[in-house]
Amino acid sequence: MMSEERSPKPLTYRDAGVHIDASHEALARSRQAVEAARTPAVLHRAGAFAGAFDAAALAGLAAPVLLATTDGVGTKAHLAARLGRLEGLGADLVHHGVNDLLAQGAEPLFFLDYIASGRLDPAATAALITSVADACRGVGIPLLGGELAELPGVYQAGALELVGTCVGAASRGDLLDGARVQAGDVILGLPSSGLHTNGYALATRALAGLDWSAPHPALGASPEDVLLAPHRCYLAEVRALRAGGVDLRAAAHITGGGLRDNPDRLLPPHLTARLDRSAWTPPPIFELIAALGPVAPEELERTFNLGLGFLLVVPPEDAARACGLLPPGVARVVGEIAPRGAP
Amino acid sequence: MMSEERSPKPLTYRDAGVHIDASHEALARSRQAVEAARTPAVLHRAGAFAGAFDAAALAGLAAPVLLATTDGVGTKAHLAARLGRLEGLGADLVHHGVNDLLAQGAEPLFFLDYIASGRLDPAATAALITSVADACRGVGIPLLGGELAELPGVYQAGALELVGTCVGAASRGDLLDGARVQAGDVILGLPSSGLHTNGYALATRALAGLDWSAPHPALGASPEDVLLAPHRCYLAEVRALRAGGVDLRAAAHITGGGLRDNPDRLLPPHLTARLDRSAWTPPPIFELIAALGPVAPEELERTFNLGLGFLLVVPPEDAARACGLLPPGVARVVGEIAPRGAP
Repeated sequence: MMSEERSPKPLTYRDAGVHIDASHEALARSRQAVEAARTPAVLHRAGAFAGAFDAAALAGLAAPVLLATTDGVGTKAHLAARLGRLEGLGADLVHHGVNDLLAQGAEPLFFLDYIASGRLDPAATAALITSVADACRGVGIPLLGGELAELPGVYQAGALELVGTCVGAASRGDLLDGARVQAGDVILGLPSSGLHTNGYALATRALAGLDWSAPHPALGASPEDVLLAPHRCYLAEVRALRAGGVDLRAAAHITGGGLRDNPDRLLPPHLTARLDRSAWTPPPIFELIAALGPVAPEELERTFNLGLGFLLVVPPEDAARACGLLPPGVARVVGEIAPRGAP
Repeated sequence: MMSEERSPKPLTYRDAGVHIDASHEALARSRQAVEAARTPAVLHRAGAFAGAFDAAALAGLAAPVLLATTDGVGTKAHLAARLGRLEGLGADLVHHGVNDLLAQGAEPLFFLDYIASGRLDPAATAALITSVADACRGVGIPLLGGELAELPGVYQAGALELVGTCVGAASRGDLLDGARVQAGDVILGLPSSGLHTNGYALATRALAGLDWSAPHPALGASPEDVLLAPHRCYLAEVRALRAGGVDLRAAAHITGGGLRDNPDRLLPPHLTARLDRSAWTPPPIFELIAALGPVAPEELERTFNLGLGFLLVVPPEDAARACGLLPPGVARVVGEIAPRGAP
């Protein structure tokens, strides 16, 4: 007997908004990119419950330490989805994680991702996975695993979530824990490629009145292009400095909390990073956000990187040589370490 | 000069829907639980860009392999948030990851989490982090790192996302890659505690007509209590079997894809897991979902664990002893390995 209140048609997972076939299709369409990022250290086969990574490389490290960080792309992913431009998000996700490891003195080993939305679109999801895998290949690490989730009722229409975990390693003696930093050490700044992955909720609101697709005179490009520029990776720079024997004493990846909160994160409590605002000019996107918000200088500072994506602390005698090891104009002296509380 | 279209009040990150102070409060309120899960292997200090874990323990492994898995709690997290019952979600997240590693033959080393919502509620977020940290402590691993994200415009009101990454290790020779599995090997089933973390979109839709807070005669408990039962962890069982010298040849964690897709995931392509449906009785929640959906048997099977959360493959001569190493009634023979395509 059929009840009037209940559909006679059996309920399926698909009826409930979950499309397993869409997930299979997305995985099939991105498989080639994931395979291209594979390295000989990957040991698991398809279908595994967890990725497996040969840790033989750790045997070469004195007192090996594993480092790991989880990050999301946040509002930038939502923005990219809304604009239909997902291709840079993999670099945003992977480079954010890699830079976090670099700031601790580690090199990346492998990466895992998590992609979720309210409705899994196979083409968009495949583009995202491909983008993550391509970024992994770019830094020489495999995309060891990942998860696709379709969560009706959790995400707003068209929104997506992109989360990644980067695992790396270092010799214990190479960890950048700030212990050797001294007052008078020099802070080198490496340029950001834009907002990286922080401050998008504020930026999109401040710039809401602009035509994002048209070139803007102050930017020399469209706001859309400037906002979606992928997060820059500092692996090559850090490797070049290490290879050149520069004494790296601390580093900072300028992410959430901006230039106000990040420079001191790895310094001993009695020291502080003192940046010289005249040493660099923030790119025009930050001036535009400040003017149109309007956004006050202190709010800008605790939200954005203002043009410096990564900082390195070196002894004064290494500063010029460090700058010389990188392409001209990449590294510049942007401040120095001072006793905390000094005038 | 003030424009009519623009508020004269400077725009802040808070105006844009991001509350850094709420995030700091959530972290402060959960710090004690995170500290309680800390182990001597944790090397980083507060403020680090990445968690650091002493890998000295790996030196004791012959040919060490790192294993890693990322998972979300998905619709179950959304349901728990809606019901204001977040306390079990940490176990859901952590046990899911640990079980994935166990299925590959590894033990967990550390965990990282990611928590996101449209509006960060400090109390709820602290409860979630505490729940994750408590579950980590329960399995003896640190919560090495994590990320809190407040993403206005991405999540629906009241919805939250909870994602975790579990990293573990194994000796290469202990990896459960299915290579030694033979036809005639026995499949042991370990009981689930309910739906674990899969099939919630379908289950909540099938059960929508019920009063979830009232005890249901078929369940002996309220639907809410049954649905929110935390994901069971199989670490103790797997350790007991290993310690007892049982020859574990393969395992399967029954997650997305249910009893249809998971048992064969780690078997060689010429073999298949043949489950004996008369060997166990699915708990009443699955019968209720089937009856009220209605949900067809094949759909149930590809969505739910139907009472078996973890499977282990052992040689026939080890089966009885394996069951005897666990508390009475925990492990039972639920099937055998057969050549694929055999009648």
